[in-house]
Amino acid sequence: MSVTVITRLTGMARWEPGTRERLQAAAMDLYLSRGFEGTTAADIAQAVGLTERTFFRHFADKREVLFGGQELLVQAFLDGVAAAGPHASPLEMIESALSAAATFFTAERRDHSRRRQVVISANPALQERELLKSAALAASLASALRSRGVPGSTATLAAESAVTVFGVTFSTWIAADEQRSFPAIQREVLRELVALADGAR
Amino acid sequence: MSVTVITRLTGMARWEPGTRERLQAAAMDLYLSRGFEGTTAADIAQAVGLTERTFFRHFADKREVLFGGQELLVQAFLDGVAAAGPHASPLEMIESALSAAATFFTAERRDHSRRRQVVISANPALQERELLKSAALAASLASALRSRGVPGSTATLAAESAVTVFGVTFSTWIAADEQRSFPAIQREVLRELVALADGAR
Repeated sequence: MSVTVITRLTGMARWEPGTRERLQAAAMDLYLSRGFEGTTAADIAQAVGLTERTFFRHFADKREVLFGGQELLVQAFLDGVAAAGPHASPLEMIESALSAAATFFTAERRDHSRRRQVVISANPALQERELLKSAALAASLASALRSRGVPGSTATLAAESAVTVFGVTFSTWIAADEQRSFPAIQREVLRELVALADGAR
Repeated sequence: MSVTVITRLTGMARWEPGTRERLQAAAMDLYLSRGFEGTTAADIAQAVGLTERTFFRHFADKREVLFGGQELLVQAFLDGVAAAGPHASPLEMIESALSAAATFFTAERRDHSRRRQVVISANPALQERELLKSAALAASLASALRSRGVPGSTATLAAESAVTVFGVTFSTWIAADEQRSFPAIQREVLRELVALADGAR
């Protein structure tokens, strides 16, 4: 018996612990098959045998299915900055921030991230939102670095560089043939950035 | 007799060489005093004694007054990449690109750039557009670097770093008390980025 059928029979779906995850999985399937614009919150809820009202108990709107959880990622970056040693250089602070953020991107999450990216790449408004989220992350990170005593423009450079390393890592990690883990790729990308600044040919 | 009065009397304004510049200056005054949203193309044209139709002969819309000329800036970056020596490292290519772009930001332009920034900072939609323009610049630059043989992720890192250096330089250059020239600030910011990657504390 499928989860959907059980859900319908018991009528307990809204209280099940996995409701949010099931809504998210169903949303992703629909966004991929019908497109983001062509999918409504009601469609998503119906796909898992729930009401639109239940959907809105879990997500503010259908966009939040894609972008929810961003605060947790930003917080991981900030916690990483805070966790760096008392005499850490700005580079060590962003290394610590990047390592903390990398823990989000587990092997189990890779397929979800790939599917999510297909949805976002197909929609300019979602791409813009992704860009705004990146800019907001860089601004929060720069401010965390400044509060640890990193001077103004170095803090901005370091934060922007961290977001760039993170972005390049993410794109590499979700590539079809990529096998390495997120942290392994990220360490390599950070090394590339350091080599670039060294003027390596 | 003011330029506006002469313009009205001669009716020759649309053929004058400085029309575009006068429209731009009037637009900036209005954007600062009434806000971007509160200004129409007709208001701008009227301020210099011209018709709305003439305005639209020079600018596609009132946003283009702020963002027109971006293609020339992108082209300067690309020309800079092309001008780097045949054995240049990626860092040298972006140094060359940044130097080429810096020539746009002359002392005479600083006040205009400051005023433009005030208008953009007051309007989230304009800030988003600025962000999209930056992302497009980074993408063009990465592609120019790749066409010069810089491998994929290094090209992205180098291009994003160049755009970051450019952005930090621009913000510093338009600060109220800043006296140094754009190229001088930019060299310093690039040095800071190199020092950051060196792990300097």
